[in-house]
Amino acid sequence: MTLNYDAEQLLPIEQVFRDPVHDYIHIQHQLILDLIDTREFQRLRRIKQLGTSSFTFHGAEHSRFTHSLGVYEITRRICDKFARNYPEKKSGDGGWDDSERLVVLCAALLHDIGHGPYSHTFERIFKTDHEAITVEIILSHETEINKLLKAVASDFPAKVASVIQKTYPNPQVVQLISSQIDADRMDYLLRDAYFTGVNYGTFDLTRILRVIRPYSEGIAFQISGMHAVEDYIVSRYQMYMQIYFHPVSRSMEVILDHLLKRAKELYEDPEMHLHFQTDLLIPFFNQTATLEDYLKLDDGVLGTYFTLWREEKDAILSDLATRFLDRKPFKSVHFVDKQDQPILEKLTTLIQEAGYDTDYYTAVNNSYDLPYDFYRPNQLTNRTQIELMYPDGSFVELSKASEIVSSLAGKMRGDERFYFPKEFSKPKTMKEITLFEPIYQEFKQYIKNDAIIQPTKILEE
Amino acid sequence: MTLNYDAEQLLPIEQVFRDPVHDYIHIQHQLILDLIDTREFQRLRRIKQLGTSSFTFHGAEHSRFTHSLGVYEITRRICDKFARNYPEKKSGDGGWDDSERLVVLCAALLHDIGHGPYSHTFERIFKTDHEAITVEIILSHETEINKLLKAVASDFPAKVASVIQKTYPNPQVVQLISSQIDADRMDYLLRDAYFTGVNYGTFDLTRILRVIRPYSEGIAFQISGMHAVEDYIVSRYQMYMQIYFHPVSRSMEVILDHLLKRAKELYEDPEMHLHFQTDLLIPFFNQTATLEDYLKLDDGVLGTYFTLWREEKDAILSDLATRFLDRKPFKSVHFVDKQDQPILEKLTTLIQEAGYDTDYYTAVNNSYDLPYDFYRPNQLTNRTQIELMYPDGSFVELSKASEIVSSLAGKMRGDERFYFPKEFSKPKTMKEITLFEPIYQEFKQYIKNDAIIQPTKILEE
Amino acid sequence: MTLNYDAEQLLPIEQVFRDPVHDYIHIQHQLILDLIDTREFQRLRRIKQLGTSSFTFHGAEHSRFTHSLGVYEITRRICDKFARNYPEKKSGDGGWDDSERLVVLCAALLHDIGHGPYSHTFERIFKTDHEAITVEIILSHETEINKLLKAVASDFPAKVASVIQKTYPNPQVVQLISSQIDADRMDYLLRDAYFTGVNYGTFDLTRILRVIRPYSEGIAFQISGMHAVEDYIVSRYQMYMQIYFHPVSRSMEVILDHLLKRAKELYEDPEMHLHFQTDLLIPFFNQTATLEDYLKLDDGVLGTYFTLWREEKDAILSDLATRFLDRKPFKSVHFVDKQDQPILEKLTTLIQEAGYDTDYYTAVNNSYDLPYDFYRPNQLTNRTQIELMYPDGSFVELSKASEIVSSLAGKMRGDERFYFPKEFSKPKTMKEITLFEPIYQEFKQYIKNDAIIQPTKILEE
Amino acid sequence: MTLNYDAEQLLPIEQVFRDPVHDYIHIQHQLILDLIDTREFQRLRRIKQLGTSSFTFHGAEHSRFTHSLGVYEITRRICDKFARNYPEKKSGDGGWDDSERLVVLCAALLHDIGHGPYSHTFERIFKTDHEAITVEIILSHETEINKLLKAVASDFPAKVASVIQKTYPNPQVVQLISSQIDADRMDYLLRDAYFTGVNYGTFDLTRILRVIRPYSEGIAFQISGMHAVEDYIVSRYQMYMQIYFHPVSRSMEVILDHLLKRAKELYEDPEMHLHFQTDLLIPFFNQTATLEDYLKLDDGVLGTYFTLWREEKDAILSDLATRFLDRKPFKSVHFVDKQDQPILEKLTTLIQEAGYDTDYYTAVNNSYDLPYDFYRPNQLTNRTQIELMYPDGSFVELSKASEIVSSLAGKMRGDERFYFPKEFSKPKTMKEITLFEPIYQEFKQYIKNDAIIQPTKILEE
Repeated sequence: MTLNYDAEQLLPIEQVFRDPVHDYIHIQHQLILDLIDTREFQRLRRIKQLGTSSFTFHGAEHSRFTHSLGVYEITRRICDKFARNYPEKKSGDGGWDDSERLVVLCAALLHDIGHGPYSHTFERIFKTDHEAITVEIILSHETEINKLLKAVASDFPAKVASVIQKTYPNPQVVQLISSQIDADRMDYLLRDAYFTGVNYGTFDLTRILRVIRPYSEGIAFQISGMHAVEDYIVSRYQMYMQIYFHPVSRSMEVILDHLLKRAKELYEDPEMHLHFQTDLLIPFFNQTATLEDYLKLDDGVLGTYFTLWREEKDAILSDLATRFLDRKPFKSVHFVDKQDQPILEKLTTLIQEAGYDTDYYTAVNNSYDLPYDFYRPNQLTNRTQIELMYPDGSFVELSKASEIVSSLAGKMRGDERFYFPKEFSKPKTMKEITLFEPIYQEFKQYIKNDAIIQPTKILEE
Repeated sequence: MTLNYDAEQLLPIEQVFRDPVHDYIHIQHQLILDLIDTREFQRLRRIKQLGTSSFTFHGAEHSRFTHSLGVYEITRRICDKFARNYPEKKSGDGGWDDSERLVVLCAALLHDIGHGPYSHTFERIFKTDHEAITVEIILSHETEINKLLKAVASDFPAKVASVIQKTYPNPQVVQLISSQIDADRMDYLLRDAYFTGVNYGTFDLTRILRVIRPYSEGIAFQISGMHAVEDYIVSRYQMYMQIYFHPVSRSMEVILDHLLKRAKELYEDPEMHLHFQTDLLIPFFNQTATLEDYLKLDDGVLGTYFTLWREEKDAILSDLATRFLDRKPFKSVHFVDKQDQPILEKLTTLIQEAGYDTDYYTAVNNSYDLPYDFYRPNQLTNRTQIELMYPDGSFVELSKASEIVSSLAGKMRGDERFYFPKEFSKPKTMKEITLFEPIYQEFKQYIKNDAIIQPTKILEE
Repeated sequence: MTLNYDAEQLLPIEQVFRDPVHDYIHIQHQLILDLIDTREFQRLRRIKQLGTSSFTFHGAEHSRFTHSLGVYEITRRICDKFARNYPEKKSGDGGWDDSERLVVLCAALLHDIGHGPYSHTFERIFKTDHEAITVEIILSHETEINKLLKAVASDFPAKVASVIQKTYPNPQVVQLISSQIDADRMDYLLRDAYFTGVNYGTFDLTRILRVIRPYSEGIAFQISGMHAVEDYIVSRYQMYMQIYFHPVSRSMEVILDHLLKRAKELYEDPEMHLHFQTDLLIPFFNQTATLEDYLKLDDGVLGTYFTLWREEKDAILSDLATRFLDRKPFKSVHFVDKQDQPILEKLTTLIQEAGYDTDYYTAVNNSYDLPYDFYRPNQLTNRTQIELMYPDGSFVELSKASEIVSSLAGKMRGDERFYFPKEFSKPKTMKEITLFEPIYQEFKQYIKNDAIIQPTKILEE
Repeated sequence: MTLNYDAEQLLPIEQVFRDPVHDYIHIQHQLILDLIDTREFQRLRRIKQLGTSSFTFHGAEHSRFTHSLGVYEITRRICDKFARNYPEKKSGDGGWDDSERLVVLCAALLHDIGHGPYSHTFERIFKTDHEAITVEIILSHETEINKLLKAVASDFPAKVASVIQKTYPNPQVVQLISSQIDADRMDYLLRDAYFTGVNYGTFDLTRILRVIRPYSEGIAFQISGMHAVEDYIVSRYQMYMQIYFHPVSRSMEVILDHLLKRAKELYEDPEMHLHFQTDLLIPFFNQTATLEDYLKLDDGVLGTYFTLWREEKDAILSDLATRFLDRKPFKSVHFVDKQDQPILEKLTTLIQEAGYDTDYYTAVNNSYDLPYDFYRPNQLTNRTQIELMYPDGSFVELSKASEIVSSLAGKMRGDERFYFPKEFSKPKTMKEITLFEPIYQEFKQYIKNDAIIQPTKILEE
């Protein structure tokens, strides 16, 4: 493809995509339209934004494609606000330099371009890294995206990549894409809330866009909008607690993890070598996968192999594939690390005694998030704290102004759960009852109110 | 599976699914929960409700799974209204017999269970029929769904099927599922509007649920709700005109159609026989597909084959697969059948002269819908007209009470379009311009305002 | 007040009003802020937008203040679109001349400034005219509004008034404020729908703002937005049929009309002269009211007099005041003019025989609207028809492109109703039954399905 | 009025009121319909729910009438849930006794019936008490409401009153109407959020209705709904911080307070005795007001007197009336009690020196709320803490389960502000500048970032 146009040119008339979250996505540059039309970007239509969450919240079937458009749109709106209200008048005055617009819009649109199917689990098993792949897609001479970006300037792909890698010199540009309150997070909270149908994630985007402003060291918010920012932090926390960490979604992730692990082990074991079709995954089993191999994957490709594997003779592979396709989650209980370890071991032994391979039929899964943190000088990985600006230009860090945020700051939230087959919690068929009755009786004495209970506590009652 | 429970039993405590359209889907019977958990029903998660529409309205990625739950929920709410306000007091008094509840709920939930990936196109190429398959899934002894339904009563599967086939004796039950204003249509209009992000499909469901009522020959609406019913008809019309018939979605359907046709022809041609992986489709190429074969298909399986085919050496197969995966729609113009036929032939010749195989690179596509019709005694396939009931118990047919509906009644709406490669409408690269310039100049004189224009009209101007 | 600032100046930073319909109202000119702060404009807070409609739809308590801000905001958004996409390049090219912005924004904000309490009824009784008063408020040297407008230029008040009077030379400016699809109507449909809680009035404003465009003779819409415009016409029709013409709201208007008429007659009759407090209305009873008198009135002033009048010894005045304050509407039936006249007379006689003064206890009320019409050369008062523009710049009138609109065009919609005390329709107390039984029996034989029924029809049944 | 019907009877067919917050308000008892139709209840249409808040959030013009219907509807829905899922099987088992339905519905509907115009301020000046008046309206033999309630049973009015007074024996009934998460609060948060147009108050009502449940000592919530309850507490906190405590709304309240105080003082002062019309307020000036006098008041009556007073010759009365009617709020700054007292005195002196009567032209206003508290045995006025119930029937108090709630529990939130004429903050006209320049220069050195600043801090900078 030889490009015979000026990539930066503005469209004579704005084009739009209808979007249920932002009403319209407004496209003003030919380059943005063309990036959306690339093979690599269109592929995001085939990768769900929330992985296994739609097994719990059936509306959440939206793709990374829609989210990427949304991040672009929020970024565009912020650029418009900045350009109008806070234009840079002389270099370094803390105003917004609108010549940064194209690079930040491209970074917004492409920030998730490296994601593959069920990234979190896939990466654990196959040692891939979606962030590295994002950069590779932008920089590799093989991609359509790189060709388009290069048409702007030879160093433009590297600039876009550096925004995503947070090494771009202008902190305003970096923080719009990656900070504790960036366009990425704002879009996914609103979007995931819309598609799941809950309203925990609904914060006041228009008010935040009213109070966001650039300053010399990045992005800040007017103090008058403190409660809107506070509400965003609470929404984020609620979405993690109620949607992203939902035990059933994590259960389906556990099954997916064990299923891919089983397939890999079967492939690696000469005696059990997979003889069936799985071509598109072979480079990953062999750890020889190229970018080209990676770009062929999507949710549907994995699903197709699961459909084929469900008929394989390996009982574990077949059973796990069936569980994933037909949504048969494991049951789970909350536990407290260390303290409950002996009981977990006891329970695992019981499950083993019932004839299950506990490598595939039990799991511990931790989901933790840090809802907000201020800057801590001594830590290795640090966060850009959220700054509120007073009318006189002085600042206060968010958690100092908000007791709610202070109550969440710096503390990991989430829970640790132990996963096991449902029949141990509640035998359903006669056959299950007959087989497991004594084990079940023992099993359930360690569990109360959806959590592991200590023997001492048992005695107390 | 031996079922050791009473399938009709009410759950001790209602269970819910969070739904963005209806807030909560309320499940009250163990049977409904179990039907949702079957392999056949879970499969609907992997089949998009609107096929290629998400290529135009990116939010519309929702599955037939979510729609099926929605139809169930609207039906359940109507049953509640009927049971409360219009219970049958003696047989034949036109009231609602609540012992019909379970059969109508099952029919609502399962009415689309036979759908496969991109049904409309798939059926055209492979001669399958999703309605027949729906019945087969309900009646076949091989399915999990049949096993559950049989546990209610041996003739229960046949009853559920007959509701869907409209042969069930109680017309109220049939019309709740299939009529010009049924639970199916009410859900899909609201749901498709929600996920596309338009509000054309938003009619006043709660008001319609206020005025719907049973009578001896089916379902009617109180006259006081006339404008709400009228608004529903207009919403339906708007959704067809603006969403379902969108030229770009139909373009992607044309590409899908040609792609599957090409694959089938390659498979059938001994010289060009497909050597690559396509196992799950072979029974369909061979026309030997069983229900088991059908249930393995989903959107992801087709997508996986398209990913494999894009690397095939057959240039047409590879190109069409690429166009589908990377969303490269054909361009289209509106035409008027008969009248514009000579020009279509002329255009087709031009495209052929430019070196394209017009069997694969052109198409005509008609999309028509009858927004509403009253009963016409002499027609073969007839529609249950919408009846409005006066306080004194007399009726008036909807189009007699509403001039708006009257203006839509009995007339097919839609358009016919001619599809062709985009480069004929607007050459993009230098190469395209060089190659096609004279053809392009001729081509464009037949087209004006997105439609075929007659030479006589050309002369006039 | 001496103004020491440039009235046209842009605010250094945009100010906003939170609005439930448009999210934010954005104010960019100091003049607009100052106009909102005037006594005349603040007074609109005390006048309900929908008069008696909140007696039927209790949420509809919003004021003309909120609507006026909304009309301003829609106009502002259209100006932004026009200035960006369709700027005038040379005079008369049909583009938008952005120097018209301030005059059109002022006209939008002030178009309803002359409204008083329950204008429709008040004007009938007291012969006032809110449109003339609007112009007077803008032009009178006594008003705060005039002082502000004059600060722009000495002829600026006259310009603003002429936009509202439709005599301003630029048809684009006039049509933005007054046409069949203007900012006024768009705001009130959306706003009234929001506050009543119905969704009939919900059309796709953002899509209409996408397709609206200026041309040399006014405002047009791109043909691609035809269905959005069509949907707006249908929404408008639905709001009139279901909200604005609701029989109960009209009943309360009938009571208000009769109440004010009674007060006026008592005041004029030397024997019955009102001796009680009613000072603020006296200029209106005497037909000597000045603008100053008019600006003192609001819904609360009328309500205060009603509270005082309810204790007056004139039984009719007291009863009607009580009915209005305590929401005791008359009952009504639909009738067909001329044809049902003899029956109306019969019913009126029956009511009179029961001892009611039918001047005050019966009424006929017609509510009619013309949902849309195209231009008709021979008519006196004519409407600017809605024009759709093709890509090549040619036009088609809306009703020629839409059969739905065609079915509504040029036909008055509404109904005529006869109002009478509720007890004739449904006696409630023993006393009422005893008194009215025979009359009631006769009365009800003329009424069926909420309408007058002809004796011939009675015989038929 | 002699009632000839069974007040408890169910309506043959449910009646509805369209409501923008709850979609429909469902009425099932004739008694509820009749209570709504009383003079005392209809009067609530003329009293705004949020008093002066609509001066800041112009959409918030809704009345106490709409809120009262909303509290009724939420209570009704909870009764339905309880009756279905948690019916009392034997006395004292903690289940819901549905024979309590009518008393709780009446209490819900009538809980605010004693409110008058701008209650908070009015009560301060005239020593009335809306809670006492609520009870009086229910118990007085003079009211229509009392007559209707007595028709149920002679002790029924007292029962309804005792629910509102929290002395009713069944704690479930009391807590539905008055607790930290009752139907009253749930409705006003949602309703005020809807009408202001903010979304801080939007919590997940349907989820809370899913998890609310009766137990032997009142109302609890299933632990699975903890985050929904937590979100409700945060929403409540946000609404107080951002809407109810808005400095501008409080400023208008300050003006109203000073205006009524001035009128009262003028009335009491023989020399300045008000000679103008103010009849409906005289009983309140004289402290002889009866219930009958009270029921004549509404927002419009006060507004009418303000319109009359604005023309009075007392300059302060006239000016304050004008400020209220035309929305001319005082300016304000935050201060810290005690610490900033000397500066407040200094500022007050400056204002006095500029010729203002600081009794009327300055004020301090404190707005404080306790977002949530747990039970504290040693406190006089105590709160029913929110209890979460585990599957095994044990409880945990909300703030022990939620760190966010814990961060808010037991701490008063709000602020103290000092109010003064705007011209001291920002002189607008030449005249103001000339007059106040030196005072203004001194004034502003004590103020920074919208708060009083200490001299020590001034020095530091």
